[in-house]
Amino acid sequence: MMDFARTRKLFYMPDGVIYLDGNSLGPLPHSAVERVSSLMTHQWGEMLIRGWNDAQWMTMPRRIGDRVGRLIGAPAGTVVMGDTLSIKVYQALASALDLVEDKSRRVILSDSGNFPSDLYMAEGLIKSLDRGYVLKVVAPDEVEAAINETVAVTMLTEVDYRTGRLHDMKVLTAKAHAVGALAIWDLAHSAGAIPVDLAGAEADFAVGCTYKYLNGGPGAPAFIYVAPKWADKARPALSGWLGHERPFAFDLTYRPGDGIDRMRVGTPPIIALAALDAALDAWDGIDMADIRQKSIALCDLFIREVEGKCPSLKLGSPRDGTQRGSQVSFIHPEGYAIMQALISRGVIGDFRAPDAIRFGFTPLYIDETDVRAAVDILADIMTNNLWDQPQFKQKALVT
Amino acid sequence: MMDFARTRKLFYMPDGVIYLDGNSLGPLPHSAVERVSSLMTHQWGEMLIRGWNDAQWMTMPRRIGDRVGRLIGAPAGTVVMGDTLSIKVYQALASALDLVEDKSRRVILSDSGNFPSDLYMAEGLIKSLDRGYVLKVVAPDEVEAAINETVAVTMLTEVDYRTGRLHDMKVLTAKAHAVGALAIWDLAHSAGAIPVDLAGAEADFAVGCTYKYLNGGPGAPAFIYVAPKWADKARPALSGWLGHERPFAFDLTYRPGDGIDRMRVGTPPIIALAALDAALDAWDGIDMADIRQKSIALCDLFIREVEGKCPSLKLGSPRDGTQRGSQVSFIHPEGYAIMQALISRGVIGDFRAPDAIRFGFTPLYIDETDVRAAVDILADIMTNNLWDQPQFKQKALVT
Repeated sequence: MMDFARTRKLFYMPDGVIYLDGNSLGPLPHSAVERVSSLMTHQWGEMLIRGWNDAQWMTMPRRIGDRVGRLIGAPAGTVVMGDTLSIKVYQALASALDLVEDKSRRVILSDSGNFPSDLYMAEGLIKSLDRGYVLKVVAPDEVEAAINETVAVTMLTEVDYRTGRLHDMKVLTAKAHAVGALAIWDLAHSAGAIPVDLAGAEADFAVGCTYKYLNGGPGAPAFIYVAPKWADKARPALSGWLGHERPFAFDLTYRPGDGIDRMRVGTPPIIALAALDAALDAWDGIDMADIRQKSIALCDLFIREVEGKCPSLKLGSPRDGTQRGSQVSFIHPEGYAIMQALISRGVIGDFRAPDAIRFGFTPLYIDETDVRAAVDILADIMTNNLWDQPQFKQKALVT
Repeated sequence: MMDFARTRKLFYMPDGVIYLDGNSLGPLPHSAVERVSSLMTHQWGEMLIRGWNDAQWMTMPRRIGDRVGRLIGAPAGTVVMGDTLSIKVYQALASALDLVEDKSRRVILSDSGNFPSDLYMAEGLIKSLDRGYVLKVVAPDEVEAAINETVAVTMLTEVDYRTGRLHDMKVLTAKAHAVGALAIWDLAHSAGAIPVDLAGAEADFAVGCTYKYLNGGPGAPAFIYVAPKWADKARPALSGWLGHERPFAFDLTYRPGDGIDRMRVGTPPIIALAALDAALDAWDGIDMADIRQKSIALCDLFIREVEGKCPSLKLGSPRDGTQRGSQVSFIHPEGYAIMQALISRGVIGDFRAPDAIRFGFTPLYIDETDVRAAVDILADIMTNNLWDQPQFKQKALVT
């Protein structure tokens, strides 16, 4: 197995913390502080407006898009950064509905394991379009059977944010194509977590965020992938000036830019992109197959240890590592309090309503020792009911 | 006149630079570097995911929205930060079209002095809606006459990005309301440039960016204002999870949050918000009336000096300061080369196609001495045709 001692050193980890929430917000890469500080001082400060040319800010969304693309099986020039994941979902869905051949179809197919914001954005788009589109939400294991000739677009998150259950992107995309539908994939819990092969799976669109496994920082920019076959045909819906063929001609009418560039909208968030760019350095030379191997080993170990030591916790994730992303959930009616107790002891995971405690395993900086230590603390909390205290039951704004 | 020596010291200015482009990208506030660095190190690094609660990241878009609100006449709780200006235009327009009483109206009225991205976003929305909406673009001085019973929404930028020509927000909004239309205002070149009274003008929606006069940094987050009367009725169109009534309930269906919160979409860009928050400190205790007084004085001086020393340059902005924002343009067929020559001598303004050289005047850090020195250099360039060199005619990606 590959040794990740090198990458572990790239991240700051507070003393006494075992961080099993990198699937929600990745930790700080040491180099990001200096990178951002340097961009602010030497580029923004010294170059001022000239930074757009002299420091090549304007092309950052494409350059960084290519770096992300390498991790998700996207060819160079097919990914661009910008906005938030929710905005990118909207663009992908609006484009896909436009491109689907049979315009009479009205079903957007998703599942109840999709992240709610994706569903909300689809709802908002459907209301705007007011053309009778229906968002059909089935159980995750019913998706494949529900892909039929009524479906215009499938809109799925590859890895279920609560359970870690993994959809088979290749199989479901092929099924969508076989019935004449287009496939959109949300890679929020995939990018940097598992090997993804967008080109090989012939996905039509993909979107994702970069603050989880890619460690870009709180609210880091999102990405969108458009398959080369659609790149010059897709209508971006959110047609902003930086997606225009010639933004600085300041024409009064919109002409979409070439290929993926048309998915750009407004002025890119340069400071945030600098942090992300620094974070992506950790991935240089990393093979996602090595990440996957270690990720499965860590998750398997965690499951085995928790089941051995905490019998009241019920596994909420697939047991088979090949059917799972890089996270594990356990179910308990007092999940919220248990997670607060864990956090108070330095083991940071998170809680997903109504009853899941969720743990992310991130090979870049988490190893077997962390897993064992975390389970020992969890076992102490469970065995001695240490979670059963008022201060652990007080709900915070963000869970 | 108020003395701005205090605020001038808050910004970094490279040696030898006279910066007359703060209307495009404000300069670096010294405190922003430390603020961002501290947020990254002490909040992201130490708190990790807990920052969302413990450092109150989740409420930053509202807290900072209130700080911006004070500068644009918006009551507390009516402004929220997020996304880019183009995205916020889309939200405002989609909401306004929904709210207008007479649903048979099909005209969105704008003018040729609006920033192209606003027009592009409207085009994109119109195509999505596919309900026969028409974007009617008239000359800026024809706007008032064009506001009639066919108009659903007026969508105007208060200060023309090329000429600085100022629309009368109060008069045009009243006219829009008189005919039963709603009024959206883009404050890109207003916020921090001139006194704005959104509440007094009874504007329905307003949007703006923060990287110009508010000095938030390249690609800093945008803002949106919704009039209190619409706040609980507006449909955000881009209905993301952070605009949901209870984001962390992870419901499968969307319920808009209270008031301005529903205009939030995805996860907020915390690092960028920290830079902006630091930049806004410069505005503490500043009265926009003082800014306006000095701004007009600087612009008037610039016009007088340029017209006296550079007869081949033709004023492209209103001569009357009360009809102008905080910027001045001059027209010349060789404007691009002239601006490049100026920049090579340390006087930074910008060029707006086809023939305008544009200069922003920002009282927080620019004074009379700067203006006189800039004009002397401009006069030297014009008198001696120093712009007429090949290296000044080569077009850059970003102008």
